[in-house]
Amino acid sequence: MRIRTLTVALLMAGVATSSLSGPLAAKEGMFTPEQLPEIAEDLREAGLELDPDALSDLTGFPMGAVVSLGGCSASFVSPQGLVVTNHHCARGSVQYNSTAENNYLENGFLAPTMGDELPAAPGSRIYVTTEFSDVTQRMRAGTDTLSPNERYDTVEQRMKDITAECEQEAGFRCRVASYYGGSQYKLIKQLEVKDVRLVYAPADSIGKYGGDVDNWMWPRHTGDFSFYRAYVAPDGSAAEYSEDNVPYQPDHHLKVSAAGLDDGDFVMVAGYPGSTSRYAMLAEVENTFGWNYPTFQTLLTDWIDTIETAAPEGSDARVKYESRLAGLNNYEKNLRGQIEGARRVGLIERRREREEALAAWIAADPSRAAYGPAIADLSALSQESATAARTSFWYGNATRAQLLSVAQRLYRLAKENEKPNAQRDSGYQERDMAFFRQSMQALDRRYDPAVDKAEWKLFLKGYIAQPEAERVAVYDDALGLTGIDDAKQLDTILDGFYEGTSLDETETRLALMDASVAELEASNDPFMKLAIALYDYERGLEDAGEERAGRALALRPAYMEAITQWQSEQGQLPYPDANSTLRITFGNVMGGSPFDGMAYLPFTTLEGITQKDTGIDPFNAPARELALIEAKDYGPYELETIGSVPVNYLSDLDVTGGNSGSATLNAQGELVGLLFDGTFESVNSDWDFDPRTTRSIHVDTRYMLWVMEKVDGATNLIEEMDIVE
Amino acid sequence: MRIRTLTVALLMAGVATSSLSGPLAAKEGMFTPEQLPEIAEDLREAGLELDPDALSDLTGFPMGAVVSLGGCSASFVSPQGLVVTNHHCARGSVQYNSTAENNYLENGFLAPTMGDELPAAPGSRIYVTTEFSDVTQRMRAGTDTLSPNERYDTVEQRMKDITAECEQEAGFRCRVASYYGGSQYKLIKQLEVKDVRLVYAPADSIGKYGGDVDNWMWPRHTGDFSFYRAYVAPDGSAAEYSEDNVPYQPDHHLKVSAAGLDDGDFVMVAGYPGSTSRYAMLAEVENTFGWNYPTFQTLLTDWIDTIETAAPEGSDARVKYESRLAGLNNYEKNLRGQIEGARRVGLIERRREREEALAAWIAADPSRAAYGPAIADLSALSQESATAARTSFWYGNATRAQLLSVAQRLYRLAKENEKPNAQRDSGYQERDMAFFRQSMQALDRRYDPAVDKAEWKLFLKGYIAQPEAERVAVYDDALGLTGIDDAKQLDTILDGFYEGTSLDETETRLALMDASVAELEASNDPFMKLAIALYDYERGLEDAGEERAGRALALRPAYMEAITQWQSEQGQLPYPDANSTLRITFGNVMGGSPFDGMAYLPFTTLEGITQKDTGIDPFNAPARELALIEAKDYGPYELETIGSVPVNYLSDLDVTGGNSGSATLNAQGELVGLLFDGTFESVNSDWDFDPRTTRSIHVDTRYMLWVMEKVDGATNLIEEMDIVE
Repeated sequence: MRIRTLTVALLMAGVATSSLSGPLAAKEGMFTPEQLPEIAEDLREAGLELDPDALSDLTGFPMGAVVSLGGCSASFVSPQGLVVTNHHCARGSVQYNSTAENNYLENGFLAPTMGDELPAAPGSRIYVTTEFSDVTQRMRAGTDTLSPNERYDTVEQRMKDITAECEQEAGFRCRVASYYGGSQYKLIKQLEVKDVRLVYAPADSIGKYGGDVDNWMWPRHTGDFSFYRAYVAPDGSAAEYSEDNVPYQPDHHLKVSAAGLDDGDFVMVAGYPGSTSRYAMLAEVENTFGWNYPTFQTLLTDWIDTIETAAPEGSDARVKYESRLAGLNNYEKNLRGQIEGARRVGLIERRREREEALAAWIAADPSRAAYGPAIADLSALSQESATAARTSFWYGNATRAQLLSVAQRLYRLAKENEKPNAQRDSGYQERDMAFFRQSMQALDRRYDPAVDKAEWKLFLKGYIAQPEAERVAVYDDALGLTGIDDAKQLDTILDGFYEGTSLDETETRLALMDASVAELEASNDPFMKLAIALYDYERGLEDAGEERAGRALALRPAYMEAITQWQSEQGQLPYPDANSTLRITFGNVMGGSPFDGMAYLPFTTLEGITQKDTGIDPFNAPARELALIEAKDYGPYELETIGSVPVNYLSDLDVTGGNSGSATLNAQGELVGLLFDGTFESVNSDWDFDPRTTRSIHVDTRYMLWVMEKVDGATNLIEEMDIVE
Repeated sequence: MRIRTLTVALLMAGVATSSLSGPLAAKEGMFTPEQLPEIAEDLREAGLELDPDALSDLTGFPMGAVVSLGGCSASFVSPQGLVVTNHHCARGSVQYNSTAENNYLENGFLAPTMGDELPAAPGSRIYVTTEFSDVTQRMRAGTDTLSPNERYDTVEQRMKDITAECEQEAGFRCRVASYYGGSQYKLIKQLEVKDVRLVYAPADSIGKYGGDVDNWMWPRHTGDFSFYRAYVAPDGSAAEYSEDNVPYQPDHHLKVSAAGLDDGDFVMVAGYPGSTSRYAMLAEVENTFGWNYPTFQTLLTDWIDTIETAAPEGSDARVKYESRLAGLNNYEKNLRGQIEGARRVGLIERRREREEALAAWIAADPSRAAYGPAIADLSALSQESATAARTSFWYGNATRAQLLSVAQRLYRLAKENEKPNAQRDSGYQERDMAFFRQSMQALDRRYDPAVDKAEWKLFLKGYIAQPEAERVAVYDDALGLTGIDDAKQLDTILDGFYEGTSLDETETRLALMDASVAELEASNDPFMKLAIALYDYERGLEDAGEERAGRALALRPAYMEAITQWQSEQGQLPYPDANSTLRITFGNVMGGSPFDGMAYLPFTTLEGITQKDTGIDPFNAPARELALIEAKDYGPYELETIGSVPVNYLSDLDVTGGNSGSATLNAQGELVGLLFDGTFESVNSDWDFDPRTTRSIHVDTRYMLWVMEKVDGATNLIEEMDIVE
């Protein structure tokens, strides 16, 4: 089978396309490793010089070098467990180690020797995939005949059981991943490296250059790279931090190309994309883009304003909320981009057309008749889920107060603890307790009562403005909201919560992790009382959601079978939605035309940093870097066709969040950069891959090496890696 | 002599340059018609197919077709006096004729027959150049030995005398223009067509598409074109509006190309650029970019805020201030662009280097020794002027109140009227009275006392915050500002002005045009009293300015002689700064790279309109237009290389304000578009032509014809013009 290579009029006339050595094909597809034999021919045509079959060996070269950080991707670049990832993936560890005296965020950090490497932030992990097996039969057997809730519970329980069996081997983390909406299940077994150390991170003024202003933007000049090192016990097993630990010796590591790429060159990315919705049904798309995203985007804007007012710049509170503000701004910009993108491509209309075309395909052949009712049911279910999401939107927001969430999680934990470990819900099992405890501890660093109250009040104002049908009686009663319609009255209610609680104390929260249900029910803490009052209602919401999920588990495989068969007949190679499992995507270095009359050039240059630089964060490159640029001290890292050292480049790869930090590989499988972002026009690609506008952004290896050699003097690391021309 | 063709690495690698048929040369230079023989070879090389010598005949083809509207450029496009210019140059006439019932701004206007054409806004003129002669000798003779003030007065008086002689022929307007800082003087005689009629203007939603948002911006999709017709008395002489008037029959008119251009094609523009400062000295540049522009840009931002607060959206006052707000926003954006541009090119450093290089050139040859002291004196004078401008900056702003300006102009008029007409200052002669009266009448439409007071208060707050040296005692005394330091006290002072004045009445203002000095001095109007109190101080400022100007008149010619001789020796053809006289500039259709990583494509397309359209002003293209685009109903106007009708295009021509409406001509001298804007990166080109970023924006003739034929049905005009393939 061949992937359809969509030859599109990719760039407006007037932009060079002649220099593209590869075909003008948009490379949609986040392929699973076992799909690689099916795309081998396309890979070769696109320029891959390695044997494509080598790519499907997850423990061979180069895939064996690719790891996950949980949320980010990364890869080994030395036999001594040196790992390269994005600066923004390792920044938490830089921050964790920073003090007023040693501000590594501001100055960067470089360990001159291994002994100087610093422990990464608590919870940092490196996951090295060691096994990958199909568990579909065991997961799905006999579930067809169950009721929706039974089906959901059975699937959940089997996942937990399989995971638990797999994790009997110490030092490993296992996960059952669902593909194609529950059609297939794979067990993924990963070595869980727990002793992760920070080796090198450039200063924010390089690694985060452009900051939030440039986030999702091209042109870009971000040195978004950092280095970790994986440490294990002397016997090679995963172990907590210890001075006795030794660098992990991976079976494979990537060579680093100093020769680099040019416009049109083949590139591929192996990483762990988080989640996409390419097979979402019309009803979901309509609800998402017609109501949910626009409503939430507006709320986000108010939310950001609320925090900025309650935590003025320069205040202690602002420090605690910087990270949340950055996240909300990022999310708001993303939603805005998604809304614009959906409008641009006519997403709703495209989905309507797809469903109509699929229906026509089913109608065209009596052997396909069985798909019809399943898809009709799934469509009705999508509509039902959309309605449920809509009616609980404001309730969901009105229960966001951080201490309420803490109380809810603690009470839930006490409830779950009444069950045997294996039957507890996911997130409340013994294997989850380290992360649970960590999050209870971390609250201090991101909580301020005045800000939390201002946020809660904002959400409550939205909630009380909703019609009866979207109000929740038990919530209204517990808070005494009936008849309340102004902000002043809300103040009185909320003040009682913040004055009466002790959940803002870390010791209290940690102690309550061991409390029984009865103990919590005897508590006078207002947040705990509210959490308990809402418990049954929340479980009801959860049950209803699980009932719908149980129905979907029966219906969606039929839909996926129909749509993938239909797509295959049209010459497309279907691929499952992203699910945080290893995927490969390939394409070419390529500029683009974000909109009429404009073109993105494929590379940015060192000189672009000087052009952008204002001396003020986030455009405050180090003086040393600016002087090197002024002196055109390019070293061996210049790309002749652009007359400078390339900083960032664009490609047409199909990626999404979670791919951050992914190794970008050239035709020989050598490291030529790290993926770290997509353009603003690409954010909608989670719903619909638009080959005309989807572009991913990479930091060029030559810039990384130039910074390491010239700016930061990280020659020890350059020497440790295998640099190839 | 040859122009230096600066072959620059114009575009980043990766952008097509291969399709450029012309040389990759940036075409700096706003050449006077008599310079054309000197650049004939370059014109031919750049692609001109006409005989270059033909261009220097101002009354021949094609230059005879080029006219001025005073502030805009335009050209004849039919033997019946049909004139094409920018929509934004004719929009005042569309507005003047619009009513609630016939809103031509919203709906556009098309006269089906000549009889339906509407009178243009009062004061609209079409100036047809008929003679052009050198008057340097008469202007400069004997002025070297005069004192600076005498020199200034003599030059002014000679200008008035020559103008008056020339204007003895009724129906003509004459002007003595100074070139190279007073080195040369030319007398320009123009037929003053006073009966100008509006023939056709597309709706704002085409002609002003993108509005202020897109102003100075690329990509652009503005149908910035409109048509006037010139009418004269039956005997061919210029005459005021009359039903008996007949269309003016120009000796020449432009043919209109429907074949159009492609990337890289030769283009030239003939028009009336207003003013540039390419030969400004370092002291002036330092003061402008180091202090004046940044200070004023900040003040403009406050000023805009002040008006928006005092005249809230939807208020009657806002209607009166819309045009001022648009102007201030435009100015603020322009200053911002200039400041950014100066920083980008390192303008101050470049000027420093130019002065050093010029000094070295002078020092290299004893025959150039005389230049040295003149340039040193001019440099000192530039510094002196900069200091004077700085010290009077806040006083100048604090006297901006509209009724104060009215009072000052009326009192000045009474004073000037005591002199014989020929000796009155420019602006106060009999020939100026029609415009003077018009401005006294027009005040009503742009004045609101509350807004005027808010503006004045803003400026006064800035003024009273200045150190003693920048305060003006007579102003402080007249307003009672000594010791005043808060806004409330200012309110009390200003209230008295607005309560006590009658200058807000049109009849009062018009009546006072005939008042004597004594009558005005007997007035109790607070604005008039303030104007009279400031009169001597203002005349002192004026005298001091004239004294400096008089010195400059003696010094600048030497500097210009030195710098142009130096530039010539380097292979550059010097050209005078723009001065609202006819200039020719030539180059090529060309995209650009505004900054690292981005490229401007040379053309925009119809589809870009649909992409941008939100349905909300200024992105609210007519439904009919959007439907035609959707249907790809391109007619014969498609450019194959872009697969659509080109809307706007870029070129590397050297233009500035006043060029608006200029005919863009192809190699055969046919009309291929109208110049209407420059990109944001170009606004600094008034000070320094940066070949890398300077791009002018044109509306494509094919878009004009497409709109006329398909959208507005202006087939009568298409038939009237000579359309050529």
